[in-house]
Amino acid sequence: MSILKKTAKESFVTMTEMVLPNDTNPLHNLMGGRMLHLIDIVSAISAQRHSNRIVVTASVDNVSFSHAIKLGNVVTLQAKVTRSFNSSMEVYVEVFAEDIPAGIRTETNKAFFTFVAVDQAGKPIPVPEVVPESEQEKELYASALRRRQLRLVLAGRLKPSEATELKSIFED
Amino acid sequence: MSILKKTAKESFVTMTEMVLPNDTNPLHNLMGGRMLHLIDIVSAISAQRHSNRIVVTASVDNVSFSHAIKLGNVVTLQAKVTRSFNSSMEVYVEVFAEDIPAGIRTETNKAFFTFVAVDQAGKPIPVPEVVPESEQEKELYASALRRRQLRLVLAGRLKPSEATELKSIFED
Amino acid sequence: MSILKKTAKESFVTMTEMVLPNDTNPLHNLMGGRMLHLIDIVSAISAQRHSNRIVVTASVDNVSFSHAIKLGNVVTLQAKVTRSFNSSMEVYVEVFAEDIPAGIRTETNKAFFTFVAVDQAGKPIPVPEVVPESEQEKELYASALRRRQLRLVLAGRLKPSEATELKSIFED
Amino acid sequence: MSILKKTAKESFVTMTEMVLPNDTNPLHNLMGGRMLHLIDIVSAISAQRHSNRIVVTASVDNVSFSHAIKLGNVVTLQAKVTRSFNSSMEVYVEVFAEDIPAGIRTETNKAFFTFVAVDQAGKPIPVPEVVPESEQEKELYASALRRRQLRLVLAGRLKPSEATELKSIFED
Amino acid sequence: MSILKKTAKESFVTMTEMVLPNDTNPLHNLMGGRMLHLIDIVSAISAQRHSNRIVVTASVDNVSFSHAIKLGNVVTLQAKVTRSFNSSMEVYVEVFAEDIPAGIRTETNKAFFTFVAVDQAGKPIPVPEVVPESEQEKELYASALRRRQLRLVLAGRLKPSEATELKSIFED
Amino acid sequence: MSILKKTAKESFVTMTEMVLPNDTNPLHNLMGGRMLHLIDIVSAISAQRHSNRIVVTASVDNVSFSHAIKLGNVVTLQAKVTRSFNSSMEVYVEVFAEDIPAGIRTETNKAFFTFVAVDQAGKPIPVPEVVPESEQEKELYASALRRRQLRLVLAGRLKPSEATELKSIFED
Repeated sequence: MSILKKTAKESFVTMTEMVLPNDTNPLHNLMGGRMLHLIDIVSAISAQRHSNRIVVTASVDNVSFSHAIKLGNVVTLQAKVTRSFNSSMEVYVEVFAEDIPAGIRTETNKAFFTFVAVDQAGKPIPVPEVVPESEQEKELYASALRRRQLRLVLAGRLKPSEATELKSIFED
Repeated sequence: MSILKKTAKESFVTMTEMVLPNDTNPLHNLMGGRMLHLIDIVSAISAQRHSNRIVVTASVDNVSFSHAIKLGNVVTLQAKVTRSFNSSMEVYVEVFAEDIPAGIRTETNKAFFTFVAVDQAGKPIPVPEVVPESEQEKELYASALRRRQLRLVLAGRLKPSEATELKSIFED
Repeated sequence: MSILKKTAKESFVTMTEMVLPNDTNPLHNLMGGRMLHLIDIVSAISAQRHSNRIVVTASVDNVSFSHAIKLGNVVTLQAKVTRSFNSSMEVYVEVFAEDIPAGIRTETNKAFFTFVAVDQAGKPIPVPEVVPESEQEKELYASALRRRQLRLVLAGRLKPSEATELKSIFED
Repeated sequence: MSILKKTAKESFVTMTEMVLPNDTNPLHNLMGGRMLHLIDIVSAISAQRHSNRIVVTASVDNVSFSHAIKLGNVVTLQAKVTRSFNSSMEVYVEVFAEDIPAGIRTETNKAFFTFVAVDQAGKPIPVPEVVPESEQEKELYASALRRRQLRLVLAGRLKPSEATELKSIFED
Repeated sequence: MSILKKTAKESFVTMTEMVLPNDTNPLHNLMGGRMLHLIDIVSAISAQRHSNRIVVTASVDNVSFSHAIKLGNVVTLQAKVTRSFNSSMEVYVEVFAEDIPAGIRTETNKAFFTFVAVDQAGKPIPVPEVVPESEQEKELYASALRRRQLRLVLAGRLKPSEATELKSIFED
Repeated sequence: MSILKKTAKESFVTMTEMVLPNDTNPLHNLMGGRMLHLIDIVSAISAQRHSNRIVVTASVDNVSFSHAIKLGNVVTLQAKVTRSFNSSMEVYVEVFAEDIPAGIRTETNKAFFTFVAVDQAGKPIPVPEVVPESEQEKELYASALRRRQLRLVLAGRLKPSEATELKSIFED
């Protein structure tokens, strides 16, 4: 018998990295692709903590990059599972960059990655439900449905006209 | 004076990679984050070709991962700029994975990355317009507007009710 | 004017890593040298947080490795500055390894790294004093003196007979 | 039947590395953790040569870093087994850094790493005794006992009052 | 029954890479060894495409490096099998480097790598013959015999006096 | 005034590496391109030792690969400058691979790399002459002329009919 419910904060993971030369572009800023790589790892660990399973990346939602992160900066990533759907889990990640000698800390990215828990043969396997506790966790739990519909629409697996959660946003 | 228009195919880039051990998860499949890293690099090169500028990643649209890519497989990424908006460019990337000894080739991912052309100081700088020629290029050019509105809505920079291109999809 | 005192917990850093193929030996276990590399990075970030300076590694104390950490395991490193001496800081690091699917978490290493804060020219520069608050922080603060004497003795910069803190341990 | 004794110099290994960008901190100097990683590899190869076995790192003794090693410098590491204790071996490593164009060569580090020889299942297995020949080898062989006691004391596996070799140092 | 003949262009592969900091020497130029590493990968993929087998590098012919390739440049490698001999294949690679913002594109290297197709046990296995179509393909197919004799002479497996194809070059 | 002559053995360099997972192909053998990368680094260090200059790779002669080197093997590379020609130096490298637990050591490769010494602006600069001492050094010094002619012929910078050293080999 497996655990049926786990709180969101049980899946909380913090990752801290220093920006090294090979992570940077010719302007000496962290490349977007390297940031996505880091976010994928931290959110995979978070999904592992929730499911106690091997997990594989199912999708990444839209991520925007609006701040340059310099060589030598420290990047902190914090991940937490927001909600599960059978064998899939949505993970929310917040990223902060710090120029510690300059005393500057900036929130640089927010991202939603989705993972599927699999067994050793790579077959999907059910995961515990998420119990949100804090206000932010409850808000993320509720809005997960809307993000899921958007993913399904973008993947061509749901007709826009049937995405009821999404439709309501565009009607006012 | 700079070039005002360039065809989409002038920005075409092909990248081929072999999946190495360090790119893989415990199931010996390519990790999602590593794939995003590769897509970022090939699309950055494509945006560079279009703009003849240093470019920085501005955003990645929703990407889904539905196929496992095994250790030793060959990954082919093909990128092309679809449309530009002042200093920003949307790049479309198609990814194929091959198990060459087994003779299997699969389309594994499609992605849209957006880049901003910058000068040496990191300041945005205008780029040429895109001239789409093939049917696919024309379709991608037209739909770029809708994807851009979705990005702006998701980034909280456009009200859903004002996203006219997007709204039409949900109304029928 | 600079800050004269900071609490130990202001320098707290958590780093989380997944063990990848290239980190492992032929038994598929994390190599000791890779672990030391990770401990060096997390403790350097902790020393940076305390000093708000670029820091360089001055020494590592004896570290022992008694647990095998497998490929795919998750490694969590937690670092905190224990005490400062002019421009140098001692950082304490605790390392845990988890086989998350198996539900096993083990404390694998404890380490003390010492860093020196430097200016842009690489010249040592004073750092704030450490204010220990918890019982563990106070104990580590007190014992830092003894560890420092051992370092000086081992480096040939202090005669064993003058290492009063150390001597007392061997006399009873 | 296995070899019972081997000379120290049979385990001698020289490793030469060039300092690459990703090995360096924001001052463009080799990071301490990267140096420890290199020392671990060269000393593991030396312990392999002595034991003809797979080896795992058991501990590193205090290492101090007193010289900055610049990007592009050449680092030479020389390792030799000093003494064995059943299945464990102490390896002595000397590190030199050279700025070859400037004609400067500096001894930068000395380190003692300890390894355990294991079979394919990871179980400790006896190794040959070391026969020291040169004056330095004999001195290192003799002092290995004292360093071993210090390791056991620091690991809490030997009471300081029973560390007879160590005690004598602090009494005079 | 396996395919007996394949055209040269069926094995065509394009690889595109950006020069990253860790690929460069102290003058910030791509290191020769890193370039050879890239050429080996692209030509191995080409030989895989021709043979639908795992392939192992058998030899590299003389490669000269006459152009500095700067950090941030884009390197394009194009590979095609020229001719097969039982289980071995010769692959021709052309390398171009671009400083895209400066609008400069240079042919930097030409190389011939030879691969052997092997089965899972590493045993050589026959590959299809190559059908050259274009003028360049036909020229490379014809001259492959001469390059092969030179390889055999250099490897001491053919007496210079018996290298009839080669001899003719030196006699006039 | 600079040094006019240096012995061959003053440029001797030994490099030792362990084959890690990311260096290997799907058969778990060291990839040819990674081996060439290692040979380039060790021979560049040797050329640096001879010239006390920054050096850039000018060419690699034919290298053949006839032995599989397994994951976990130890690779030893030994390099020495054979002869100089104004600002260029030919370096001879011998590579050995060892499966230490199995007690097997094999000579796997021999290679000749050529480097050019350059100043900070990348401009070629004269290097000392080489004084060969041992029989092998004298033989390599003498035959360097023939290899140099072959390089020039292959690069299209010398007519085969004028390559007097080479011609003699094919005439008997």
